[in-house]
Amino acid sequence: MATQFYSPRDLRFQLYEVLNAERLTKFDYFRDHDRESFDMVLDAARQISETVLKPLLTVMDRNEPQLVAGKIRVHPQMRSIIKKFGDDGWINAPFRYDEGGQQLPATIMNAATFIFGAANYSSSVFPFLTTGAANLLRSFGSAELIDRFTPKMYAGQWQGTMALTEPDAGSSLSDITTTAEPTDTPGTYQIRGQKIYISAGDHDAVENVVHLMLAKIKGGPAGAKGISLFAVPQQREENGQLVDNDVLTAGVYHKMGYKGAPIAHLMVGSNGGTIGYLVGEPHQGLRYMFQMMNEARVGVGMNAVSIGTAAYYASLEYARERPQGRPVSEKDPTRPQVPIIRHADVKRMLLFQKSVLEGSLSLLLYCSYLADLSHVADGDEKANAALLLDLLTPVAKSYPSEMGCLTTSAAVQVLGGAGYTTDFPVEQFYREARIHPIHEGTTGIHGLDLLGRKVTLQGGKGVQLLLAEIERTLVDARPYADLQPLADQLTAALGKLDAVTKHLLSLAPSDTEAFLADATLYLELFGIITIAWQWLRQATVAQKNLPAAAGDDVNFYQGKLMTARYFYEYELVKVYSLARRLQATDRVTLAMKGEWF
Amino acid sequence: MATQFYSPRDLRFQLYEVLNAERLTKFDYFRDHDRESFDMVLDAARQISETVLKPLLTVMDRNEPQLVAGKIRVHPQMRSIIKKFGDDGWINAPFRYDEGGQQLPATIMNAATFIFGAANYSSSVFPFLTTGAANLLRSFGSAELIDRFTPKMYAGQWQGTMALTEPDAGSSLSDITTTAEPTDTPGTYQIRGQKIYISAGDHDAVENVVHLMLAKIKGGPAGAKGISLFAVPQQREENGQLVDNDVLTAGVYHKMGYKGAPIAHLMVGSNGGTIGYLVGEPHQGLRYMFQMMNEARVGVGMNAVSIGTAAYYASLEYARERPQGRPVSEKDPTRPQVPIIRHADVKRMLLFQKSVLEGSLSLLLYCSYLADLSHVADGDEKANAALLLDLLTPVAKSYPSEMGCLTTSAAVQVLGGAGYTTDFPVEQFYREARIHPIHEGTTGIHGLDLLGRKVTLQGGKGVQLLLAEIERTLVDARPYADLQPLADQLTAALGKLDAVTKHLLSLAPSDTEAFLADATLYLELFGIITIAWQWLRQATVAQKNLPAAAGDDVNFYQGKLMTARYFYEYELVKVYSLARRLQATDRVTLAMKGEWF
Repeated sequence: MATQFYSPRDLRFQLYEVLNAERLTKFDYFRDHDRESFDMVLDAARQISETVLKPLLTVMDRNEPQLVAGKIRVHPQMRSIIKKFGDDGWINAPFRYDEGGQQLPATIMNAATFIFGAANYSSSVFPFLTTGAANLLRSFGSAELIDRFTPKMYAGQWQGTMALTEPDAGSSLSDITTTAEPTDTPGTYQIRGQKIYISAGDHDAVENVVHLMLAKIKGGPAGAKGISLFAVPQQREENGQLVDNDVLTAGVYHKMGYKGAPIAHLMVGSNGGTIGYLVGEPHQGLRYMFQMMNEARVGVGMNAVSIGTAAYYASLEYARERPQGRPVSEKDPTRPQVPIIRHADVKRMLLFQKSVLEGSLSLLLYCSYLADLSHVADGDEKANAALLLDLLTPVAKSYPSEMGCLTTSAAVQVLGGAGYTTDFPVEQFYREARIHPIHEGTTGIHGLDLLGRKVTLQGGKGVQLLLAEIERTLVDARPYADLQPLADQLTAALGKLDAVTKHLLSLAPSDTEAFLADATLYLELFGIITIAWQWLRQATVAQKNLPAAAGDDVNFYQGKLMTARYFYEYELVKVYSLARRLQATDRVTLAMKGEWF
Repeated sequence: MATQFYSPRDLRFQLYEVLNAERLTKFDYFRDHDRESFDMVLDAARQISETVLKPLLTVMDRNEPQLVAGKIRVHPQMRSIIKKFGDDGWINAPFRYDEGGQQLPATIMNAATFIFGAANYSSSVFPFLTTGAANLLRSFGSAELIDRFTPKMYAGQWQGTMALTEPDAGSSLSDITTTAEPTDTPGTYQIRGQKIYISAGDHDAVENVVHLMLAKIKGGPAGAKGISLFAVPQQREENGQLVDNDVLTAGVYHKMGYKGAPIAHLMVGSNGGTIGYLVGEPHQGLRYMFQMMNEARVGVGMNAVSIGTAAYYASLEYARERPQGRPVSEKDPTRPQVPIIRHADVKRMLLFQKSVLEGSLSLLLYCSYLADLSHVADGDEKANAALLLDLLTPVAKSYPSEMGCLTTSAAVQVLGGAGYTTDFPVEQFYREARIHPIHEGTTGIHGLDLLGRKVTLQGGKGVQLLLAEIERTLVDARPYADLQPLADQLTAALGKLDAVTKHLLSLAPSDTEAFLADATLYLELFGIITIAWQWLRQATVAQKNLPAAAGDDVNFYQGKLMTARYFYEYELVKVYSLARRLQATDRVTLAMKGEWF
């Protein structure tokens, strides 16, 4: 088992040297925080991760949740883990003091979830699903609903979930068929339907589960406009007693990875006995849900980076210790073998991982910072942060998710045959990483979101804000001659992006299908350039701080500079082929017919 | 469970319309064969696959081999399966009549292994490992050794293996430390050492295992020049009795996928009781082994395509049946949902799989045909076929292996959440596909082989032969106006390859490290262009045969033409970014230091 699973040094670099997270403490909402309190949070996250979560990484993979007598049985330690996350205040840490929260910035909270996810992704899913569900309730629910549900959720006694997907409504949420019929009690509905793929939808480590569930009130508008949001507990309170609310667990999914987390198939109201409590206004469910989506999606991107980072450090450790072969210029077979980290191709596979993961982490913390600004800043700063976050969210979710499949694959490859065996953790990370391009919106959905909605939002203002930010980075880099090749390459790539965007937008009015046919590739192009920008930000700081650095910091900054160069030389260069394809006029995927396959 | 797992129509197209496999029957060695006998072989392969192998696909994955009391226990049906492969003549089918074989072309044999692998890769490994081991024995062993071992191997009673890897010698075979000491009986040695990752290295579905094992005769030269080949049975014959030969099974590896096949860790001669029989001359072991390598590596590429193809058809079936969402131009949510195969992005993921897999199958059958020619042709044709096969082998092994990880990933993505569950077979294919870039030489090793050895072999004659073949394809395509865009794109890509190759070769004399630093990317570039060439071959035949086609064949040829276009538009275009990187001068991976990670 690899000992290191993330880099505290890099996290400090990202938060304090690149992002200047301490600036957040100037805002009133975060006034009680400072660098020291941030570090205490991150140290606490590290400690739980090392002592509690990471030791269970393998055993939770080998012992999947099972459905036993209608209840999903999870790893027996999950109960105390969820309780600890509640007791230590993690579940409601970002929320207000008057809610029992700590008014912790999302930036720091997400840095902590990065640590938890790198230690043991499955276990970290439980508490933070509750956070997401509670956030919906507190944002849109009545005071009474908040009072009824959130205290036990914050305490880790009750699990929260997001219950969206149905057998015939996955990517197409407008097609849900779960129904809600008003009862005699205002705000209270009888719910009937089926929900599938519900993460932590039922398990024996909590006393109750509260589903934030989408359903359609009978007689409402068709499609997405008729979707409402309900709180649907597994057991509801009646006269101070918990009584069964007719939410049955029909099954638990067995999955390729991420096995410690139970994913449930739920039958809701099969016996006519499910009560749901309307959250907010009728028919506003999808809007409410989507207001929380940015955060959930940044969270998924972060978890993709977590898993990739754990795999990277496992492969790095192996590469440093494993002797095999000799330099290609060494012909004497009697010379001792060298550690494989000496081979260029192994360094390439390590740099690939490092460049993608640290670039993605940088973007995700940046997006978390935007989320904080969109919450606590004022005026233009607030609005611009929200808009820029909207634009970047599909990228921040999808780039790390897609690339996490490739970085964990590179980790397996570094270990060779050993990497394919269960003797090392990298094969588990490879299996776990594969979920991220699927859940919280598939990559295809995010491509459509970016190109079809976000790029043109407010007349393209989001893109203008992004370009202004990138321009600021280019200006910051200008004093450093060594960074000019990177700045030039980034500028050239932006030219390509601009040309591609204009070309695609020119198709939009007359041919929606052609406009969006390659939206997934556009997302990829956009993602690569965004990460390249993040690397120029990091490289500029490293270049600035290197002269005064001492000890390990010299290696750290040199590593940053070299990894930035790697990203530009090996990854940014991919935009040329992508742009070529995106500007081509052969609409192969549209012309292809189903019967020709 | 998906019903279709490969396309018999495509296999016929590849073998008879593109490759003209029937031409092989003009050679004396294959004189008794004809199209009808080839088809009988393929039908037989299909029948075993459907009735015996495929039904065990999932159950073999869920019930891994276990080490019980020193013996690896595999699925109980493996004994009858291996026996059937023996009885039906599959194990020695390519060998001579006087050996009990059927003088079957490698082209047809490999087409059959493609079918077996698509049905159940793990199960297909057992018999064909025996074929490979027996081939070494019959090619280089004495008549006495051949008599002693091969009849029971051909009958499926004894398993054959290739025993190369050791704890400290994986990619670097010259570092093996297994020793051989002559005994009083000539040709007979006492063997001592450890072998790891030995596929089918021990199991209870056969009576005995014969390891074709590399070891160093004490006092011989250092490095690769001191490696000899031995036949080391698990039990040896003494006075007509089988007695224990001191080859102990120390462990069975548990792996991410491909779980039905047992991979053993062997202790050889721990009690001083292992006898090995020298195969051929002393110190020639690596040369012997490598003479068999081309075939084994083409076999690995083929199995990568097999797994990918099974995943492709599973995802195609799902895409045709699964309704979800509406066309992007449809705004009315009350209209029924459409099958996802109607969405451009789903078609893209299906075309990606189809183009990579059918392009790879075409290359692998072409390489099999070259193997046949290098065996039965005369003079220049024989020598050229052997040289071209040498050049193409690293590509034919690595391109399908690397891309198989991506095509199975695309299959998972087509199914979305369902694809991540064990309710569908695609997650298993995703796990199984990951072995291929590792075994039979990692992709990094093949990159070094291609650029460092094969490209310059015989003064670059292999590349010249390849270019002449491609030129022939361009000439064949010339009559068809619709194919000119492809021909032009291929010509332009060849120009890039030429420039890159010249650039890299110019570095070789002065800087070996720089010359080979990006050999893996060179292999990727070479692979994409090679597959593009295969697609032009296929497209030309499809274009030629389309006018006279009727019924399903019209769809088939239209599909071929569209898939060729897809490969050129979305895959071939990648050469531009690769060429840019390969011609760059920033040696990032060489400059990076271990302590900077």
